[in-house]
Amino acid sequence: MAGSTLGTIFRITTWGESHGKALGVVIDGCPAGLELNERDIQLYLDRRKPGTSSITTPRKEDDTVEILSGVFEGKTTGTPISLMVRNTSQISRDYSEIASYYRPGHADYTFDAKYGFRDYRGGGRSSGRETIGRVAAGAIALKILKAMGIQVCAYTRSIGPVEADLSNFDPSAILSTPTAMPDIRANEEALSYLEAAKKNTDSVGGCMECLVEGLPAGIGDPVFEKLDANLAKAIMSIGAVKAVEIGDGCAVSKRYGSENNDSFRSLNHQTVKSTNHAGGILGGISDGSTVVIRAHVKPTPSIYKTQQTINQSGEEIDVNIKGRHDPVIVPRAVVVMECMTALTVLDSMMINMSSKLDSLIDFYRS
Amino acid sequence: MAGSTLGTIFRITTWGESHGKALGVVIDGCPAGLELNERDIQLYLDRRKPGTSSITTPRKEDDTVEILSGVFEGKTTGTPISLMVRNTSQISRDYSEIASYYRPGHADYTFDAKYGFRDYRGGGRSSGRETIGRVAAGAIALKILKAMGIQVCAYTRSIGPVEADLSNFDPSAILSTPTAMPDIRANEEALSYLEAAKKNTDSVGGCMECLVEGLPAGIGDPVFEKLDANLAKAIMSIGAVKAVEIGDGCAVSKRYGSENNDSFRSLNHQTVKSTNHAGGILGGISDGSTVVIRAHVKPTPSIYKTQQTINQSGEEIDVNIKGRHDPVIVPRAVVVMECMTALTVLDSMMINMSSKLDSLIDFYRS
Amino acid sequence: MAGSTLGTIFRITTWGESHGKALGVVIDGCPAGLELNERDIQLYLDRRKPGTSSITTPRKEDDTVEILSGVFEGKTTGTPISLMVRNTSQISRDYSEIASYYRPGHADYTFDAKYGFRDYRGGGRSSGRETIGRVAAGAIALKILKAMGIQVCAYTRSIGPVEADLSNFDPSAILSTPTAMPDIRANEEALSYLEAAKKNTDSVGGCMECLVEGLPAGIGDPVFEKLDANLAKAIMSIGAVKAVEIGDGCAVSKRYGSENNDSFRSLNHQTVKSTNHAGGILGGISDGSTVVIRAHVKPTPSIYKTQQTINQSGEEIDVNIKGRHDPVIVPRAVVVMECMTALTVLDSMMINMSSKLDSLIDFYRS
Amino acid sequence: MAGSTLGTIFRITTWGESHGKALGVVIDGCPAGLELNERDIQLYLDRRKPGTSSITTPRKEDDTVEILSGVFEGKTTGTPISLMVRNTSQISRDYSEIASYYRPGHADYTFDAKYGFRDYRGGGRSSGRETIGRVAAGAIALKILKAMGIQVCAYTRSIGPVEADLSNFDPSAILSTPTAMPDIRANEEALSYLEAAKKNTDSVGGCMECLVEGLPAGIGDPVFEKLDANLAKAIMSIGAVKAVEIGDGCAVSKRYGSENNDSFRSLNHQTVKSTNHAGGILGGISDGSTVVIRAHVKPTPSIYKTQQTINQSGEEIDVNIKGRHDPVIVPRAVVVMECMTALTVLDSMMINMSSKLDSLIDFYRS
Repeated sequence: MAGSTLGTIFRITTWGESHGKALGVVIDGCPAGLELNERDIQLYLDRRKPGTSSITTPRKEDDTVEILSGVFEGKTTGTPISLMVRNTSQISRDYSEIASYYRPGHADYTFDAKYGFRDYRGGGRSSGRETIGRVAAGAIALKILKAMGIQVCAYTRSIGPVEADLSNFDPSAILSTPTAMPDIRANEEALSYLEAAKKNTDSVGGCMECLVEGLPAGIGDPVFEKLDANLAKAIMSIGAVKAVEIGDGCAVSKRYGSENNDSFRSLNHQTVKSTNHAGGILGGISDGSTVVIRAHVKPTPSIYKTQQTINQSGEEIDVNIKGRHDPVIVPRAVVVMECMTALTVLDSMMINMSSKLDSLIDFYRS
Repeated sequence: MAGSTLGTIFRITTWGESHGKALGVVIDGCPAGLELNERDIQLYLDRRKPGTSSITTPRKEDDTVEILSGVFEGKTTGTPISLMVRNTSQISRDYSEIASYYRPGHADYTFDAKYGFRDYRGGGRSSGRETIGRVAAGAIALKILKAMGIQVCAYTRSIGPVEADLSNFDPSAILSTPTAMPDIRANEEALSYLEAAKKNTDSVGGCMECLVEGLPAGIGDPVFEKLDANLAKAIMSIGAVKAVEIGDGCAVSKRYGSENNDSFRSLNHQTVKSTNHAGGILGGISDGSTVVIRAHVKPTPSIYKTQQTINQSGEEIDVNIKGRHDPVIVPRAVVVMECMTALTVLDSMMINMSSKLDSLIDFYRS
Repeated sequence: MAGSTLGTIFRITTWGESHGKALGVVIDGCPAGLELNERDIQLYLDRRKPGTSSITTPRKEDDTVEILSGVFEGKTTGTPISLMVRNTSQISRDYSEIASYYRPGHADYTFDAKYGFRDYRGGGRSSGRETIGRVAAGAIALKILKAMGIQVCAYTRSIGPVEADLSNFDPSAILSTPTAMPDIRANEEALSYLEAAKKNTDSVGGCMECLVEGLPAGIGDPVFEKLDANLAKAIMSIGAVKAVEIGDGCAVSKRYGSENNDSFRSLNHQTVKSTNHAGGILGGISDGSTVVIRAHVKPTPSIYKTQQTINQSGEEIDVNIKGRHDPVIVPRAVVVMECMTALTVLDSMMINMSSKLDSLIDFYRS
Repeated sequence: MAGSTLGTIFRITTWGESHGKALGVVIDGCPAGLELNERDIQLYLDRRKPGTSSITTPRKEDDTVEILSGVFEGKTTGTPISLMVRNTSQISRDYSEIASYYRPGHADYTFDAKYGFRDYRGGGRSSGRETIGRVAAGAIALKILKAMGIQVCAYTRSIGPVEADLSNFDPSAILSTPTAMPDIRANEEALSYLEAAKKNTDSVGGCMECLVEGLPAGIGDPVFEKLDANLAKAIMSIGAVKAVEIGDGCAVSKRYGSENNDSFRSLNHQTVKSTNHAGGILGGISDGSTVVIRAHVKPTPSIYKTQQTINQSGEEIDVNIKGRHDPVIVPRAVVVMECMTALTVLDSMMINMSSKLDSLIDFYRS
């Protein structure tokens, strides 16, 4: 099916393979009147760019975005915004060998099973480069949310056993450290851990977290279109994510109700909660507290150690994966999580506008 | 928005509140020719029925299903199947007090924020009774999957600190024990733990797991409609679920790549994996191994301990929740997880039918 | 697929067969706070009820609607509204003969081709009784539109060669005449024409028209979700409709541009058009003028004349259809057209709320 | 909303404005394994290209398509196919004047009403150039349908009062005549008529027709997703179309049932109809006969005669539209109709694959 489209009102459709001519995204349903230029988007694309430190692949990817439609005289027109990034640095010979076998932990086998064959160059559509479209679209969603006073912020929570200490939370560190951790000390520790793994021709996993602040209460729809359900889908759809938690997440399964319930309080005539175990969502609808989402990311499946697998003839073989690969996925995936969260929240807010009859009538009366 | 509809081809729409006249579901897109009667569905509804043990609410809910359309001479016709369960035992006076305040851990406040007011009787639409429609529809999906040789099986993995030992896996125990654990010894232990929590006027959380066996490789769509993304949404949409894991889930974030990758092997000319850390899904597409999903469920928010909250005037008050509540949600939610998984998998299989040109042409040639 | 669901935000799902236990509809996405009771809906159902004149089938269908969910203390809650009409007067023996053959002009053959078999009683799902769900849902959409100052009005434009003279437009006649014509003289003429056709064991076709007044400019989305495109789909989906026109419709193909263009004028500081050939829609978006839609309806396919057809064994046979059938479909379809138009317009208005960035920001600021 | 996406399984998303950098389309859900190159698509784009005769605008538009993704080693991979056409010949000064006023018959006013402002250059998104994306995507759908033995063929039925005589049907004339009429004599007559209209600084309307041959019975879904309903939407969404007819269309409203019903016959053990008033669709589902759709197209709204309108300040003014415009839209719209029909039919066929339980089970057993 059309698996590359996300959203109901603010809807994006991504396209492109790792080693094709280009990658891109069409954003449809963006409100008219938003000031937008390439720099707004490039800023976010640069955050997912490799080659910026010792823990990302040394591949050079320029990833320069071009706005092809939907913007006139510096403002969005309400019609589809088409964004494209030309592929410039792909070296197909790096990948030619993997055409014949199935890399462990990759989608080679499942793409063949589904489609009968695959574009094997650099992972084709299942490459991490697929996220370019997500990030380019997310940059626009983030700009709109910001204009509404809503901040979305993702960061690396842990790499292997090294956890960021959130009592040291330093937002500037997210952008300045190679690990995207908000804690400079943990960043150092994680880098050492990664260096050791690299030397051992291995890769490591990690955890990322995203906060949404300023979201009004009332966003999300009961039953199947709950805000947390849509966030879970959006975040789980990021390659390599194997678990999604909302608020205290997995920890709730070991809790007593008396520990886990958040009391309501009144603060300056506003309803607040004393604690936020729920992660800002009750019954699938935002409660006005910070929305908290966590994602657990598997280690990069491309490792240099010898691995066992089969080839397309079904013969068992040993393989040594070559190429240039990040030893950990998380730092570059953080911006993807931020973008997927923003896309989901913004679409939910647009959908929510007709939830009360009075608001609907007022909207068209004015 | 229309939050009560799920699925693209096999599509369900649920309706009904805890204390309304009835609850139900419309299943549209069910293939024609399936033998179906009320007993097929009642079997599953009975698994979510309360009042069957000391750890479920003593409320009596008969929950007798009626097929209103879509079945003719014992077979589905391909047109919408409407299923209804009349509410018979709702006692509105139990809930009248809660109209004025916001119960901690419930959706009272968020429904008011979204809609301006709420049906406060028994939680209204955010009640656990909402799952009747999910289970009634899921029973049909499960029957179809079974006819295709696909088995979906959910069970309680843990309650509080008590974990089922899967090396003792006893499938019959899932249906026969009050905890829905597949391990009789863990069931006993969990019951003691629950008894203590109840005495302490408290509730507990737990974890449930679901396995899909026999699913062919190739199901699920890349990018946003990944099988795991849709499973995450479906399972996270179940009330009280706060985390969803696929395969090894959260554990992958602490792993090395060399530990986490599953090698491919050839067994009887079939592609298999030596291990299944991935939980049967690679790149969002099924790989032919068992699909493994876990969900972490918060403790029942309705507890008898005194709690702090606010009323609709914003005044801080102490509340003591009354009524009849399960001390743990998991055992009755297990069948809901099984049903949501089945609905998701079946819809993905239907969508997948045109993924290869040859299959499409062959389908219409025959 | 799930062909029984319509709409994006205001979404309805209908179900039920002519001779099943019941028919109904689930309306999801209805704003909270609308005063609603059974009488609001019954009023519209009664307009499609047969047995009220010599030109409708003498079948008695009580069609009493029951609200099963989504309304609390007299107001909609924002959650799904389930409406049901029990079938009470179906006499299955009337239809038993048609099980074996394919009635000309009916969907018997195509249902068999699609599904392998069919519920042959009274046309099953392809019966005109399927429109009960549309009308019940449309009644709610009409009530909301009215609260926004938007009037939707459908009527019979012609029956066979007899055309209503709109210069005699009498709105009360739509509800009071058996033909639903807004012109009492044409009504009389049409009744004579129908009487003659009935005597000749034949049926006749006709044309219906629907006007939407008070719709603000700016509703509808460019390209595929144009307001006229969605109206065309909604109206063509009514059984027996074979053509849909917007504004001057077919006549434009014989026009010169200088005749067909509508000049813009300024009236009391508002933009208006001197003429309305366009039928209130330009580029798929409402222009503030009256929206005009026409639908051409084929003659009732059930006629008492001997017809040629084949049976399920492929043998050519002569058939004489029995039962009780309207000699013309239009008068009872008029309310269906009104409802489908209302559903389409309301959903478009809800979708439109985020078309301008300023409006979106203002909505959440207030 | 996202108005630029069409289809459920075979889904397209178009983008681009008349005078932007480029226009394009993303096709998602295309089956893997289709041989595809730029020539397959260019062939259809060339049919909508202007400047090829005296009755099309003398604007030169090269409209060269580039495949950016989704094709590997000459075959579709199942992942999104991104197609782009760079705008090369747009001269913005031609259109600068129209920024300040609303052209009669155009979407200038409605875009301003909806979005607050508009890209006024050449009509922006409401330009006929928007159809480039439809045609590029349709070319792929047509190639797939052809591989399944299904032929889709559209042509000009009439221009002003000049009607093609279908008893002279010459398929080669559709591609070789400037009018796209399948009747060489009518083509000559229509050209004279158009010449006279041009001299009189006027434009004319026309009618186009599309036939689908070889479509199996059983395609289309009851109630809202009827094949004719989806065709009506797809065809009405083409700019300038004001009416859509299926089969005998409007004529049915003047018919007797005995004239309009098509008898079923048996021919070589196949079910056929003696006549085809229904246009190949009964109850919204294909019946195996030729599907017949007609669309009535308004005269080009851009005419050189002086017209009355208002400017953005609401002042009434006289305008003389400049630029280069076709005197009739139909000949270039014929290929758009063919493409929209193909897209709709193919998507319906994909959706239909799980309508019977046996077929679903067989599909996955093999």
